[in-house]
Parts: sequence; C-alpha cells; structure tokens
Amino acid sequence: MNFLEERICKDGIVKEGNVLKVDSFLNHQLDIALLERMGEEFARRFAGAKIDKILTIEASGIGIACVAARYFSVPVVFAKKARSINIEGEMYIAEVESFTHKCKNQVIVSKKFLSPGEHVLIIDDFLANGCALQGLISIVSQAGAQVEGIGIAIEKGFQSGGRTIRNLGYRLESIAIVDGMDAATGEILFRGQEV
Amino acid sequence: MNFLEERICKDGIVKEGNVLKVDSFLNHQLDIALLERMGEEFARRFAGAKIDKILTIEASGIGIACVAARYFSVPVVFAKKARSINIEGEMYIAEVESFTHKCKNQVIVSKKFLSPGEHVLIIDDFLANGCALQGLISIVSQAGAQVEGIGIAIEKGFQSGGRTIRNLGYRLESIAIVDGMDAATGEILFRGQEV
Repeated sequence: MNFLEERICKDGIVKEGNVLKVDSFLNHQLDIALLERMGEEFARRFAGAKIDKILTIEASGIGIACVAARYFSVPVVFAKKARSINIEGEMYIAEVESFTHKCKNQVIVSKKFLSPGEHVLIIDDFLANGCALQGLISIVSQAGAQVEGIGIAIEKGFQSGGRTIRNLGYRLESIAIVDGMDAATGEILFRGQEV
Repeated sequence: MNFLEERICKDGIVKEGNVLKVDSFLNHQLDIALLERMGEEFARRFAGAKIDKILTIEASGIGIACVAARYFSVPVVFAKKARSINIEGEMYIAEVESFTHKCKNQVIVSKKFLSPGEHVLIIDDFLANGCALQGLISIVSQAGAQVEGIGIAIEKGFQSGGRTIRNLGYRLESIAIVDGMDAATGEILFRGQEV
C-alpha cells in the first residue's frame, strides 16, 4: 500500500451507499504534510510533462492543487461552481452534475486565466462518475489549451468516471484507486498500480 | 509598500462601488509564490503565538491557508458555506451575510475538527464588513476553542469589519490595508503599518 492508501485505511470511514469519508484529512480538515506527499507524488508521476498551469475546482480541490503547485512552480486556477458577481467578462462555462449534492452546477473559469496552447494539469480530490472532471476537460478544450494530465487523490474505481477518461486517451493518475468497499466490515480494496 | 501592496498596485483592478479585483493572483488564479510569501509573513507576525490549527472558509481562503499552514506545521480546517450531505454528525453553525453575493449563508464546521482549548489562527483572503470573519469567530467560540489571531491578506480599511474586530480585542493582522480607492484613476491608498 502507498502512503495515501495507508492513510485511507487508518482514517477513512466506509459508509453505506459506497460513501468513503475522508474529511479528517482530505476534504474538511486538511493534513498539509499529506498534501505535500501527494504533491511530490504527482510531480514524480508527471515528471517530464510540460505543465504551465494547474486547474482544479472549488472547494476541496484547492488545497491539494495549491500544495502540489509548489512542485511544478506554476499558478493554480480554480473553477467556480456558481455564477458570481466577482467574475466578469468572458467566461468558459461547463454544465456539471454533482453526485454528492444531487444538483446541477455550472463550472466557470474566466477566459483571462486559460489561454490557447497552455499545457494544463487538472487536479482534484475525488473521481467517481467523473462529471466534475468532464466539465474541467471541456473548459480546457474551450480555451484551446491542452490537458497534459489529470491527477486525482482518490478514484472510485468501481464507478465509471476513471475508465471513461482513460478510454478517451487522457493520462489519468490516481494516487489511490478504490475498487471496492464494505460498509459492514469497513474493508477497502485497492487496485494494484505499477507506478 | 510591502510585497502584497506592490502586487495589488501592479495587478489589482479598482472598479466602481469600491470593488478591488485581485482575481489574477489571489482568488481565481492563485500565484503560489505570492501565497508562500504571505505564509512567511503570517509566520513572522504571529511568531511566538501558540497555534494548533488554522481555520478558513471556502473557497478562496483555502489556498492561502494551506500554503500558510506549512509555516506553522498545523492542519487546516475549512468552513463550508452550505449544508452538504457529506458533513454529518454534530456541526457548529453560524449565519453569515455575504456582501459579494448578496445572500445569507450558513457557515459550518464539523464538531470533530475543532475542540475545546485549541488555539486557532483564522486566515482569509479578504476582510470588508467582517461578516464571514464574525461567523468563523462564533464557530471557534462555540467549540470552546480560542482565537489566537486572525491573518487577512487584504483588508478594506474603509469598511467597518477590521475596526470592529480590533475593538473586540482580537489580534488582527492584515498584510495590506486599503484605506481608499479611486475607480477613475485606479489609485489605491494603503494604510501605513508598523510591523
């Protein structure tokens, strides 16, 4: 098991309905030392890739992206989930369905912060059905920029998001891929990765 | 002028209605090197203070808080702005009015992540009328924890938030305090600080 898988086993909580709660270290309280290790790991996995910018989505992607960005020496842009009077001018917009919140959101990035030809690393905390990620990919594509890679902390491998994205040819690296969970025993099955 | 004031003059945009746009480096696109300098500056200003945890609020506070947390070696907790099915169990809740979005939000922190006796540093990107900050202070107080200090990137000194908080006896450090702005000329007046 890698460091993130170990941490998930130690502090993650499996709930009914395939819910994995990692709010004690990843998406409500944030363990910064863990985020740094994840940043190092993304830097290792995407070594040699040309990356101009990291794109993430509010809110829980921001911490991971900002700490990871130190290892790439690039700025972070975070997509916003609702139209805000503080974003003006031309915007890239994608429609996104949220599994967690059971609603539809617009994902928005100002055109000022993504430019044609830029090489973008997308980073997020979770990948399940992949709706948020598809929205981010759509925005990069609208900008005429290029998705150089996708770095995810935890992928739910038993949902279709990751498979679809890989089938589309994107380079997707998830530090931990959960292939199964048992709420009764708390057991978590991770996919073996050659990395 | 300090490094943040210089950056505000260089890349900030003054708009009608006392709006200061800093979305190219602070709250949509994030300059990570700048965030690191801000983290260092908070560490310098709060040197000697006992800090167990950094508390911030989604979304734009998270990046600043996570990068700053490296200089304090403490975890970050970010307050959420709307009830989420992913937060369960007992929660601290405060009502917050948003000047920017012209609406009311509940600010929520799980009781698991703030404990009685903890020393908390609150960090956020902006302080204007102080509603969000008051909500965070209320939550720390509900937890029986202690606000050790408050670190803000940009304070609008011509709005009442900062004065009120200082009058209440809190130690509030804002890296840049804007005392006036002129949308016609783009001029920004900063408060002199002895730090």
